[in-house]
Amino acid sequence: MSASPSSPDTSRPAAAPSVNALSERLVARLIDNAARLGVVISHTAGGTVIVDAGVDAPGSIDAGVLIARICMGGLGRVTVRSNFDAAPLWPTMIEARTSSPVLACLGSQYAGWSLAATKEQTGGKKFFSLGSGPARALAVKEPLFAELGYRDRHERGVLVLEVDRMPPQVIIDKVLHDCGLAPEGLTLIVTPTHSVAGTVQVVARVVEVALHKTHVLGVPLDEVVEGAGSAPLPPPAPDGIQAMGRTNDAILYGGRVHLTVRRDDTARRLAASLPAANSRDYGRPFADIFTSFNFDFYQIDPALFAPAEVWVSSLESGATYHGGRLESALLQDQWGGEPVAP
Amino acid sequence: MSASPSSPDTSRPAAAPSVNALSERLVARLIDNAARLGVVISHTAGGTVIVDAGVDAPGSIDAGVLIARICMGGLGRVTVRSNFDAAPLWPTMIEARTSSPVLACLGSQYAGWSLAATKEQTGGKKFFSLGSGPARALAVKEPLFAELGYRDRHERGVLVLEVDRMPPQVIIDKVLHDCGLAPEGLTLIVTPTHSVAGTVQVVARVVEVALHKTHVLGVPLDEVVEGAGSAPLPPPAPDGIQAMGRTNDAILYGGRVHLTVRRDDTARRLAASLPAANSRDYGRPFADIFTSFNFDFYQIDPALFAPAEVWVSSLESGATYHGGRLESALLQDQWGGEPVAP
Amino acid sequence: MSASPSSPDTSRPAAAPSVNALSERLVARLIDNAARLGVVISHTAGGTVIVDAGVDAPGSIDAGVLIARICMGGLGRVTVRSNFDAAPLWPTMIEARTSSPVLACLGSQYAGWSLAATKEQTGGKKFFSLGSGPARALAVKEPLFAELGYRDRHERGVLVLEVDRMPPQVIIDKVLHDCGLAPEGLTLIVTPTHSVAGTVQVVARVVEVALHKTHVLGVPLDEVVEGAGSAPLPPPAPDGIQAMGRTNDAILYGGRVHLTVRRDDTARRLAASLPAANSRDYGRPFADIFTSFNFDFYQIDPALFAPAEVWVSSLESGATYHGGRLESALLQDQWGGEPVAP
Repeated sequence: MSASPSSPDTSRPAAAPSVNALSERLVARLIDNAARLGVVISHTAGGTVIVDAGVDAPGSIDAGVLIARICMGGLGRVTVRSNFDAAPLWPTMIEARTSSPVLACLGSQYAGWSLAATKEQTGGKKFFSLGSGPARALAVKEPLFAELGYRDRHERGVLVLEVDRMPPQVIIDKVLHDCGLAPEGLTLIVTPTHSVAGTVQVVARVVEVALHKTHVLGVPLDEVVEGAGSAPLPPPAPDGIQAMGRTNDAILYGGRVHLTVRRDDTARRLAASLPAANSRDYGRPFADIFTSFNFDFYQIDPALFAPAEVWVSSLESGATYHGGRLESALLQDQWGGEPVAP
Repeated sequence: MSASPSSPDTSRPAAAPSVNALSERLVARLIDNAARLGVVISHTAGGTVIVDAGVDAPGSIDAGVLIARICMGGLGRVTVRSNFDAAPLWPTMIEARTSSPVLACLGSQYAGWSLAATKEQTGGKKFFSLGSGPARALAVKEPLFAELGYRDRHERGVLVLEVDRMPPQVIIDKVLHDCGLAPEGLTLIVTPTHSVAGTVQVVARVVEVALHKTHVLGVPLDEVVEGAGSAPLPPPAPDGIQAMGRTNDAILYGGRVHLTVRRDDTARRLAASLPAANSRDYGRPFADIFTSFNFDFYQIDPALFAPAEVWVSSLESGATYHGGRLESALLQDQWGGEPVAP
Repeated sequence: MSASPSSPDTSRPAAAPSVNALSERLVARLIDNAARLGVVISHTAGGTVIVDAGVDAPGSIDAGVLIARICMGGLGRVTVRSNFDAAPLWPTMIEARTSSPVLACLGSQYAGWSLAATKEQTGGKKFFSLGSGPARALAVKEPLFAELGYRDRHERGVLVLEVDRMPPQVIIDKVLHDCGLAPEGLTLIVTPTHSVAGTVQVVARVVEVALHKTHVLGVPLDEVVEGAGSAPLPPPAPDGIQAMGRTNDAILYGGRVHLTVRRDDTARRLAASLPAANSRDYGRPFADIFTSFNFDFYQIDPALFAPAEVWVSSLESGATYHGGRLESALLQDQWGGEPVAP
C-alpha cells in the first residue's frame, strides 16, 4: 500500500501476551473479595498465597467464575447465565469464549502439569494433583509448550489445583522452583471437584476440551482462531466419583462449542471428528464408564473427552459445519430436575 | 491437615461485607452518568443527594439496572438481555444472580422499611414509601435483621424509595437519624413503579421474592447459598395499579429461579412450596386480584408472592428438584405483543 | 412539589454526553490489548493512530465487539453470546442495547460520512469509505446532525472505516480538518467487511438499522427512548459481495429488535412498518438482490434495510406490538451449518 501512512517501526509482530500478567487483576479481585466469594486466604511462612476455594471454605459460583477466568489466563470470558427457554433442560448455563483459544485453553487452562509427592516427601499422605492455569507457562514442564512455541516470563504466577486438600510444602517448593518464582510471587488456588467453585471451573473447560481433542486429532493448532462454548452447570455431587462424572457429563453430553478455523477441510473434519459421540464409550454416564474400567482413567477412550455438539466455521470458505448433538435426556436422568408435586 | 502451610492468623471467619460500601461505586456511576441514564441529581440544603429516576426525570433501563444492583448491595449481577428463542414469549428478559443471596436479597434488596409521614409532618400531602436497599442495614429497624445477624456500619448509605414523588424533608431526617448518617452521607434514589427504571428494579427482585417466601415458609436462611433468576421485562404501565400488577405478573407468572441450598429435604420442600401456584389467588392477573380485594394488599394470600417456576439444588445430595411453570399465555394476554399486520 | 428539598441550581437540563469522550476508554483498551485482539497499531508521521483490524492484521471477535462499542459512542452494550436453544438455528448471537438509541445509533454508529479521494489525490488508487462512529459528531458534515440537534466538541476523536485497505493521507487530512482535531488527537479504525472484526461490527448495527429506518419513515426521533436487538453472528465470507450479503442477511432475516417509544400510535406504526418484510426486495439473499441490480446499491428498495422482527413498546399506553419474523431457513441455506456425518 504505497499510500499507507503507517510508520515502519510498528510493523514488527506484536509480543504474545503474558497469561500470568493478564490474570493478576483477577487474582487480586479473588483475594480482595474473599469474604463475599466464600474463599479463605492464607499464606505459607515464605509468603506464598493459598486460596482455599472449596476444601474447608465454602466457595461459591462467583468464585468459580473468577477462577475459570484466571485459568484462561485473563484471555477468556466466563459467565454463568439463566436459560430463558420456555421449558429448559437445565436452568443455569456456563458460557466460555475467547479470541485466543490456543493460548487461553492449551497455554493456560489445560490441566496438564502433574504434581505428585510421596508419603516420605509430604511427611503425611501422598499427594497428587493436576495443575492448571497460567503458572504452567512459567514452568513449561509439558512438551505441549514446545509445540505452542509459548513461554511466559513474569515475576508472579498463579496455579489452580483441582484437589480436595491443601498442597504440602514440598509441592509448593517444586512449583516455585520450576516456575522460577520467589515464594511471595506465587498464588495457589485449591478447588475440589466436589465443591461449588470446582464444578464451575471444570465445566468452564468446555472449549478447552475441544481444543485438546483438536490437538490429539493432529490438527495444527494455529488453525484455530476463535472458540466459544456453553454447557449446563449442575450442582456439585457430594461423592468424588459422581462429582467427576457430573462435570464430565455436562461437557460430553451437554456441551456445545463453536470454533472458527482457517481451512475449510479442517472445519469439515473437526465437525465430524470432534463430538464425543465418536467415542466407543459414548452414551453412558461418565461415572458408570469410569467405574466399569475399575477407576483406571487410562482405559477410557480418549476420544470421549469432547463436547457433545460442535460447530466449526472456516475463514477460508466462510462455511460452517456441525456435528454431534446434546443428550438432554441422559443429563436429566442423572441430575434430577424432575417435577415435584406441591 | 498436618502438612498445611497456612499461617494460623488467617483462620478467623471473614468479616461480612458492607452492603453500603460495596454499592458506593455503583452510586457514583449513577450520579456521574446522570445525563445519559436519564436521571436528575439534586441536593437538599443539608447536602443529601436525591436521584430522581422517574418522577420528573425520564430514567432508563440502564438506570434501572444500576439501581437494581445498588439495591442488592453490590452483591448481585443484574442484566437485561435479549431472548434468542426463535419465537419468544417476550423479547427482553431480566436476569439477577448472587452468590450471597441472603445478604443481597434480604439484608439489602427487600423493601422492608416503612417510611410514613402525616400531612402535618410534611406540611403538604401525607407520604408513604417502602425503603429498600443498603441503608436498611444501617438503620436495622426491621426484626429481620436480628434473624440475619447482620448490621452494616458505614459512614455513607443509599436507600431506594419506590414512590411517585420526592420525599419530604421529615422523611429524609428520619432516615438520617435512624441510619446515623450525616446529611451529605445519604443518597436517596426515587423510582416510581410506573417508570422505566422502576419497572426494571422491581422485576429484578425475582430472586428476592423467592428468598422472602423461603423465610416466610420458615426455612432457616443459612440453608440458601446461591440464588439466580430471570423474568420478562415489560414496559411500564402508565396507570399505577396496572404498573404494580405488571411487575408482579412478570415474577408470579414469568419468573424462574434456581436456588442452591444445603439439605436435600429443604430443596425438595422449596421446589414444592415456593412456586406462586401454591397460592389460592394464583391464576389471575395481579391487578385483577388486587382490585377484587378492594386494593387491600393485606387480603392477598402472601403465598402468591413467589416466582412461577422454581429449581432447587441440594449440596447435601447433589439432587435438583423443580416445581411450578411459566404462564406464558397469561403474560401475553396482559402485555400485548400481538402481531401487527404490515 | 412544595415539600421537595431539591436545590434550584440543579434543575437545568443535563448536558448531552460526549460520544468521543465516552469512547476514549474503549479506544485505549483496543490499543493497549492490540496483541491479544489481533489488531496492529501504527502511527502517521503526524501522530494519528491507525488501528488495522482486518486489512493485514487478523482481528478477532473480541476486537469487533470493542469496535462496535466504540461505534456506539460508549453508549451501548454489545456482547457476543452462545445460543442455549436445544436445537439452535445458529450457535452464536450478537446482542446490542442502549438507553440512548438516537445518540448512540444515529449520532455515532450510523455509517453516514462519505469519504472519497480521487487517484490524483491519493497518488495511487482512488479511495472510498463510509465513516462511522463518534468523530462524525465532531465533523457534523451530514444534515442528520441538524435534526439531532447534536454536536460533539472534544479534543480527541475516533472514526471507523469499513474498507479493505488503509486510508490515504489525503483522507486523514480531510477528517482532521473537518473534525477540527490535531493529528495526534485522531484514531482511525479500519475494518473490512470480509474480516472477523468487520463482520461483528456490522451485525452489531441491528438496532442502528432499525433507528435509521424509523428516521426514513418520518417518525420524530425523540419518540424512541430505548433500543435493543440481536442477530446471529456468521463467520465472514471471503468474497466481498458475499461478505456484504451475509452481514445484511444476518439483520434482514435474522435480526430482532425491541424498541420503546413514547406514543401508542408510533409503536403500532413501527411494528407494522419497520420489518424488512415490508420491502418489495425481501425474501432473497442480499447478495442475490445486489447482483440482480448490477451492484447498484441505490436501486435496492431502502425499505429492505431493517430487522426481520420488530417489537415496539409504548410508554403512553404500556402496550407492545410486534411485526415481522425471523427467516431461519433462508439463513441456514446461506451459511451452511448442515450436519456432517462422523
